[in-house]
Amino acid sequence: MDTKTPRERYRAQVQEEIKQHAWTQIAAAGASALSLNAIAKQMGMSGPALYRYFANRDELISELVKDAYRSMADAVQEAAEAGADLVGLAHALRHWALADPQRYFLIYGTPVPGYHAPEATTQIAAEIMTVLLDAHTAAQPPATPPTPLDRHLAEHRTWAGEHPAPPSALRRALTFWTRLHGVLSLELAGHFTGMGFDPAELYTAEAEALAAG
Amino acid sequence: MDTKTPRERYRAQVQEEIKQHAWTQIAAAGASALSLNAIAKQMGMSGPALYRYFANRDELISELVKDAYRSMADAVQEAAEAGADLVGLAHALRHWALADPQRYFLIYGTPVPGYHAPEATTQIAAEIMTVLLDAHTAAQPPATPPTPLDRHLAEHRTWAGEHPAPPSALRRALTFWTRLHGVLSLELAGHFTGMGFDPAELYTAEAEALAAG
Repeated sequence: MDTKTPRERYRAQVQEEIKQHAWTQIAAAGASALSLNAIAKQMGMSGPALYRYFANRDELISELVKDAYRSMADAVQEAAEAGADLVGLAHALRHWALADPQRYFLIYGTPVPGYHAPEATTQIAAEIMTVLLDAHTAAQPPATPPTPLDRHLAEHRTWAGEHPAPPSALRRALTFWTRLHGVLSLELAGHFTGMGFDPAELYTAEAEALAAG
Repeated sequence: MDTKTPRERYRAQVQEEIKQHAWTQIAAAGASALSLNAIAKQMGMSGPALYRYFANRDELISELVKDAYRSMADAVQEAAEAGADLVGLAHALRHWALADPQRYFLIYGTPVPGYHAPEATTQIAAEIMTVLLDAHTAAQPPATPPTPLDRHLAEHRTWAGEHPAPPSALRRALTFWTRLHGVLSLELAGHFTGMGFDPAELYTAEAEALAAG
């Protein structure tokens, strides 16, 4: 049952419309050029009327970043709940990124000058990491002697919170994240264009090597 | 001996000054917000006078991208000429990136809406890849059976041109590039901030694993 009042529903609709205009602006001129006044004009609203929905540019960017993180966390969690293994999780991540590269770049691309992400986005990022830590703790690759990075991570694991992952799983989860990100960000930014190979082959090879431990 | 005429030297100086203003603007508002008119104003020039140095925004961005690629190629080539092994090349790359993250993001960050890099930048990128291919062809890690990616790259090697690198070296050079880029771009964009570990440890572990083949 939708417990929202008509006024609340209206407010949510307007916020959604503002965000759609913001994504269009970002596609045309980049996130740093986002202008609340320009959006107000496009929507036939006064500037002050729009500022009742988002107090400033950074608040609007934060909502877009949170939406982007939320959709990524959902994609990864849904895959995990459907029983995806590490290769499956990797493909869920790529599928999510390719579906809307703009969303990916707002999180992982060039930092927007003057913008600082609030705590709330860090919490969603931590949710995604928890899925990766769960998957890497459950996966049992051939045991290997602790690496220097294992030893470092055993003592520097703030990011893993209370998660029971052993150091080798911390290392593998972190490496899963950085290696897949390396291929994805280069692919999405067009750096493989004209190189002649299929980025999906490279991505799959990385995902399978990661799954093999 | 400097064979430039005084007029040519003056032109080069003004171009350099325009590029410095451009980097300052990019730091403040992002590459997509770059404005030739704003730079002209800061330099006390008329718009048309400035357009005699750079015909439009994209030409100015291309010069900055070329400078950034050139400095990266120089850093990697100097390290290779000084006898650096793969770990040494990896550290030269990180040193270059950390020295000026803006330069890194202009190449590898969010694509600037509406901007397309010209052929000249692709050529410098190919130079960097040649250094990596040379190093991976010279390095002799333990031989392993061809992977599916090796077989794919053996037939899709446009990017390697006439380089004699065998498929396994193509794969290792490509992986060197994507894995190091994964760690670097996340580090430079601040995604490791507050996680508690030292990104240098993670980077070194990746570099050493790559060198081990």
